[in-house]
Amino acid sequence: MTPVTDLDATRSPALRSWLDSANHAACDFPIQNLPFGIFGTAGRAAPRAGVALGESIADLAVLAEAGLLAVPGADARELFAQPTLNAFIALGREAWRAVRVQLSALFARDNARLRDDAALREAVLVPQAGATLHLPVEIPGYTDFYSSKEHATNVGMMFRDPKHALLPNWSEMPIGYNGRASSVVVSGTPVRRPRGQLKLPERERPVFGASRRLDLELETGFIVGRGNALGEPIACEAAEAHIFGMVLLNDWSARDIQQWEYVPLGPFNAKGFATTISPWIVTLDALEPFRVAQPKQDPLPLPYLRHAGAHGFDIELEATLQPHGAAEATTLTRTSFRHMYWTMAQQLAHHTVSGCNTRVGDLMGSGTVSGPGKGACGSLLELTWGGKEPIALAGGGTRTFIEDGDTLTLRGHCRGDGYRIGFGSCVGTILPALADTAEDGARDD
Amino acid sequence: MTPVTDLDATRSPALRSWLDSANHAACDFPIQNLPFGIFGTAGRAAPRAGVALGESIADLAVLAEAGLLAVPGADARELFAQPTLNAFIALGREAWRAVRVQLSALFARDNARLRDDAALREAVLVPQAGATLHLPVEIPGYTDFYSSKEHATNVGMMFRDPKHALLPNWSEMPIGYNGRASSVVVSGTPVRRPRGQLKLPERERPVFGASRRLDLELETGFIVGRGNALGEPIACEAAEAHIFGMVLLNDWSARDIQQWEYVPLGPFNAKGFATTISPWIVTLDALEPFRVAQPKQDPLPLPYLRHAGAHGFDIELEATLQPHGAAEATTLTRTSFRHMYWTMAQQLAHHTVSGCNTRVGDLMGSGTVSGPGKGACGSLLELTWGGKEPIALAGGGTRTFIEDGDTLTLRGHCRGDGYRIGFGSCVGTILPALADTAEDGARDD
Repeated sequence: MTPVTDLDATRSPALRSWLDSANHAACDFPIQNLPFGIFGTAGRAAPRAGVALGESIADLAVLAEAGLLAVPGADARELFAQPTLNAFIALGREAWRAVRVQLSALFARDNARLRDDAALREAVLVPQAGATLHLPVEIPGYTDFYSSKEHATNVGMMFRDPKHALLPNWSEMPIGYNGRASSVVVSGTPVRRPRGQLKLPERERPVFGASRRLDLELETGFIVGRGNALGEPIACEAAEAHIFGMVLLNDWSARDIQQWEYVPLGPFNAKGFATTISPWIVTLDALEPFRVAQPKQDPLPLPYLRHAGAHGFDIELEATLQPHGAAEATTLTRTSFRHMYWTMAQQLAHHTVSGCNTRVGDLMGSGTVSGPGKGACGSLLELTWGGKEPIALAGGGTRTFIEDGDTLTLRGHCRGDGYRIGFGSCVGTILPALADTAEDGARDD
Repeated sequence: MTPVTDLDATRSPALRSWLDSANHAACDFPIQNLPFGIFGTAGRAAPRAGVALGESIADLAVLAEAGLLAVPGADARELFAQPTLNAFIALGREAWRAVRVQLSALFARDNARLRDDAALREAVLVPQAGATLHLPVEIPGYTDFYSSKEHATNVGMMFRDPKHALLPNWSEMPIGYNGRASSVVVSGTPVRRPRGQLKLPERERPVFGASRRLDLELETGFIVGRGNALGEPIACEAAEAHIFGMVLLNDWSARDIQQWEYVPLGPFNAKGFATTISPWIVTLDALEPFRVAQPKQDPLPLPYLRHAGAHGFDIELEATLQPHGAAEATTLTRTSFRHMYWTMAQQLAHHTVSGCNTRVGDLMGSGTVSGPGKGACGSLLELTWGGKEPIALAGGGTRTFIEDGDTLTLRGHCRGDGYRIGFGSCVGTILPALADTAEDGARDD
């Protein structure tokens, strides 16, 4: 092996680590990945920065204290001891890459520095199993797009007009809306079933109660690494340089609340109760080998949405459902991010073309990832066709929408040659809705 | 005069200050108001907390340093030297009220403490004319409602079906959407005309260019003073205790971008380029004497949206337009917040009923305030009926939508007996759109 000295070398499929658990072909976090997150441990609860490697987390604060990690233009010890990655990310792409190259070199099989220093290695490598993972960034703004053509078509067929399912504006721009940043939670956080207004077909007025049509949306999200000033749009060709990395995202959706509330200002309470993201941010630098051409865009987008080259990423995605107490999970869907019609670069260019500013840590959801074919849909709404076609569960029983106690898990990875770049998992278990009281009117509709 | 020792006394119409400029009947900032803001001066640029009084700003950091202002449970010197009010607001209503009572006592005519200490008075009172006003709070989330029945009806008639202008869900809940918090700016910040996709009736595909139908929306906004945890809704009856105060809000809107983009996920680029708020937060404690019954709500809202008593506020509002170089401004509209159908308490209860969390500093817009009658509408869209009926300007010429160089000003106040509780002004001047280049496609449609 040549020593790792540049960015290309960090992506070599042949690269291996001295940490065995990082070298298994089915490991999400090989040395080629190095995703960033924020974690705490039983021994030291204070949230700090880490990088996932094999079954461990490399504590960046400890590495910096030991003088093994330097960040151009910043005090690495101070930077990585912070409870969010925002300050690190704000330093920009050159800093991200400098850290990536240093970490790759440090963990490479041939590098003895940390490998042979048992005491330091012990201090740096924390088992993932015992760690608490936090939101990796403070999220100033959350925007959710709607960029799968298959998903938009399916929803249009069910919610609106089957003959004109795809609205005319959909093919011209990455349609999106502002989501609720306050309720973005990290994987593992339980999600309480929301209550709200439900319009039952047999009643003239809505009733108040727990959502009966609670759904997942299998998405990815990207984290803005460099924002833009108000009034200064990001050009489509330049947009990827503004993106730090990606996460898995479950845009929990209460379909009954949504259908009643969403005209004319869009989804609100149907989505604002929780959005779950995976804890590890996989950088665009790690995803680079899995770049693929986006689907052909017809009509040709307006010039502000054009970019030369390939801007899709081949990320295999799946969602599973496991009822409370069930022995096994049922795979609901398998799809790929490669099917997404609008690219992340186009989303960011469109978001800012009006002059809207973005900030470091902003989260932008892809929209539900549905691929061609019904088994590749990213929501139960589509998979069960509006609840009409229940899904059989592996352990018996069926599902149309999510039931209390169900655990939903998203997973994703890029398949490399002898390794994979994984996202880990994005997990949420549904708690029963709050109990009804006389005041909230569940018994008074 | 009895000395000011409690909250009721701070609202006495008879109260007068030793600061003459606060005692004029047409002054927005009498001693009964005491709105909070963040300001800097030429001599000391660092943003810090102040309260508007007459034509001055009382520097709370200086008052605290002098030992004249204490905050229960906090170090007042540290608290008011901060560049946002969030930490102060987070202390809760008892702290807001304690500070209000102290300030009222200090500025009351009969109180010699500051009145007769010329050097300290000089240090505390800064002329508003020479100060720079900043955003008073860091805004974690911005939500905009749509709570004027007249506005929703007018827009429905123009954008959708005149015969069914008010959608069925509108009368059942305060419809709202998540806005873009990053682009909320303080009064006085110039606003660049946005560019985006415009769908011209004569062309099959959209073109890219500067909005041709740029509009204001005359709104108020409230600032959340106490948030709620995820999964723990705020009851309607308790909601006002979560509100710190109110501002004026101009929800700039590009109608052409909006009409093309807004189905099905709501307004996005049409609104995300800028939202202007006034710099002074008028507390609910100052507005209390102007509480009025909200309009009768029919149908009776579901129980979770019910609250006994009066929850409207009688705030007179107006908007003016002054072209660049014009000698005078034209009043576009005069209306009142008292016409709003849904109350702020109902908005907050609805926002959180799903379990959605709110945070200190969150901004919630009322929605365009349109009253009965066309002259009382809060947008040019309504005032010119979609651009068909131009408005004559005082200095000659007409307007359908906003032109480059136009300055739009919102003002508002409650009319008391011999005084008024004013909001100051919410001002924005429109800059021309960015120049088109080949890349953004304005010449390539």
